[in-house]
Amino acid sequence: EPMNAFSDHPHRRYNPLSGEWVLVSPHRSKRPWQGQVEDAVTEVMPAHDPECYLCPGNTRVNGETNPDYTGTFVFDNDFAALTEHAPKERFEDGLLLAEGECGICRVICFSPRHDLTLARMAVADIAKVVDTWVAQYEELGIHPDISHVQIFENRGAMMGCSNPHPHGQIWASRSLPNEAAKETENQRAYYEKHGKPLLMAYLEQELALGERILFENEGFVVLVPYWAVWPFETMVLPKRHIRSMEEMTEKERDELAEALSKVTVRYDNLFKTSFPYSMGFHQRPTDGDDHDEWVMHAHFLPPLLRSATVKKFMVGFELLGSPQRDLTPEQAADRLRDLPDIHYLAD
Amino acid sequence: EPMNAFSDHPHRRYNPLSGEWVLVSPHRSKRPWQGQVEDAVTEVMPAHDPECYLCPGNTRVNGETNPDYTGTFVFDNDFAALTEHAPKERFEDGLLLAEGECGICRVICFSPRHDLTLARMAVADIAKVVDTWVAQYEELGIHPDISHVQIFENRGAMMGCSNPHPHGQIWASRSLPNEAAKETENQRAYYEKHGKPLLMAYLEQELALGERILFENEGFVVLVPYWAVWPFETMVLPKRHIRSMEEMTEKERDELAEALSKVTVRYDNLFKTSFPYSMGFHQRPTDGDDHDEWVMHAHFLPPLLRSATVKKFMVGFELLGSPQRDLTPEQAADRLRDLPDIHYLAD
Ligand SMILES: O=P(O)(O)O[C@H]1O[C@H](CO)[C@@H](O)[C@H](O)[C@H]1O
Ligand SMILES: O=P(O)(O)O[C@H]1O[C@H](CO)[C@@H](O)[C@H](O)[C@H]1O
Repeated sequence: EPMNAFSDHPHRRYNPLSGEWVLVSPHRSKRPWQGQVEDAVTEVMPAHDPECYLCPGNTRVNGETNPDYTGTFVFDNDFAALTEHAPKERFEDGLLLAEGECGICRVICFSPRHDLTLARMAVADIAKVVDTWVAQYEELGIHPDISHVQIFENRGAMMGCSNPHPHGQIWASRSLPNEAAKETENQRAYYEKHGKPLLMAYLEQELALGERILFENEGFVVLVPYWAVWPFETMVLPKRHIRSMEEMTEKERDELAEALSKVTVRYDNLFKTSFPYSMGFHQRPTDGDDHDEWVMHAHFLPPLLRSATVKKFMVGFELLGSPQRDLTPEQAADRLRDLPDIHYLAD
Repeated sequence: EPMNAFSDHPHRRYNPLSGEWVLVSPHRSKRPWQGQVEDAVTEVMPAHDPECYLCPGNTRVNGETNPDYTGTFVFDNDFAALTEHAPKERFEDGLLLAEGECGICRVICFSPRHDLTLARMAVADIAKVVDTWVAQYEELGIHPDISHVQIFENRGAMMGCSNPHPHGQIWASRSLPNEAAKETENQRAYYEKHGKPLLMAYLEQELALGERILFENEGFVVLVPYWAVWPFETMVLPKRHIRSMEEMTEKERDELAEALSKVTVRYDNLFKTSFPYSMGFHQRPTDGDDHDEWVMHAHFLPPLLRSATVKKFMVGFELLGSPQRDLTPEQAADRLRDLPDIHYLAD
């Protein structure tokens, strides 16, 4: 039975969304680690930090003062990687090819509380973040120059986040980023061939097997994808064919908030730390086409491997060859599933 | 003139080798950094460390004793991600697809001296490393189960290297890793269309322009590619059509050693630190085909951005969208070119 051999022997798995492979080396899990360890996050934070440029009432670098917001708060990124009125021309000379790129970058504060994270927020407050994402996706998506709205969060200093105040970002752009382009192409090819969205067919398979599922409610499923790259990578998928956020019902928004709460609580519980990750939503491009092939979903990409201080390095072979993992996705799913879904700091 | 606009405005550049885009945000270089800083490497190391499992005469985890080597030393990785006799079968069930993967993983000590790095080794000693790489590429390449030989080095704790003793790795595998597959496909398409290797045409353009060249000798050129992703990424290219390492003449091996010395010395001089990076060679697959489209080359992928302790984080947008950089490749080339090519610690 090949699947058994695969839980002990090196193999590669195909990611039908990105069209790329991941190398899995299950026999290697016992490797000792003698390399770099990260700082554990132990700092106790105040509910309001007078030095924080994201806290209510404080002043940002551009001199603006944040309102006394009580839910979420959205503003244009003061150091935007994309600007709205950038030139659009194309430059081509032999093998040198470049294109002007315009876009809009925003910051979303998830809560007025400096000391919270999604994992420690109430589901009702996460639902306000979901509502904000939906409103932003719609507002930015109708801009004639915006074909793609990337909503994401870098959580924790290890993931390049420079302020612990709970917040995420949006980078909306004229072009489809690489990953969105690959996912669009692969979903389209599958849809044309099978008349059914790739991720709906995939979810059906996973629900039947059950072995990589962490959580489900009526609207959403959290699972470790068969082709997961990061040690504890997960994916959040809707149970019905939702192409992009604004197609969710009110009830589904709350169910998504609950799913996000469940996965982030388990993450924190895994190593009893505020678990770092990058997460973000992929959904249909806002280029005006229908994109019936698209199914919205979230990816959680967390770097920790064995403890609060030992991460997986995506370096030499990963950068120059293919990503590689030791722990199998099934082992990761088992570990996450067995954790309590009450936050370890909750009283 | 569009190229001028591009040095001030957001744009994206196309990488014809990988087929992917990088977002460049030159206006953003002035962003202050308040996030995680890394430990600076200041430790003075002994020439021989009795605790190091790579030093001559010491014992490794499997009980073997290293010889008293004087040049390079190669052994099979004690924690190999790939094993030679792994099962090869394929598993396919709907959207789940996996394949047994076999291969050979080796470690190459670059020098008996625990306290050196490529940047601080004599060119004649780097030439011995080049000779070892060539011998390994040939030896592993003729193995009937090996279609690809990935030679690489993870330098520095920041790049997941767990032992400062100068060493690199080889992961040789039955399948083409993702990056090798993309480079093969794009080089082949170009070769079929133009009857000329993509990287030879590219090098001609770069030599004519000069603005991204750091160093050249008779055999090799070091440049910052037009589509560089990492802040100070470079590429080492041969001046004639060399498909893989064993096609180098004796003289070219020495010239490659000199080029590697020049680029690593400049890297260390940039922030007066032992500069971390992942580097590796891409060359033609060892699957038995001619691969006349292939031109061997090295990629240096260093994470540092502003100082010895502030790196570029490849996180949210980079993982879910496209890689992004602030500094332009031309600015990076200018800074590296202006540095002395004598190591800052040399006396
Ligand atoms: O083999 P090493 O040096 O122990 O491990 C290092 O390089 C490997 C290949 O790039 C990576 O998979 C590991 O994450 C990294 O820590
Ligand atoms: O925008 P921030 O939070 O300052 O920056 C962070 O997220 C960005 C988007 O993923 C990355 O480009 C930066 O490297 C990272 O430090």
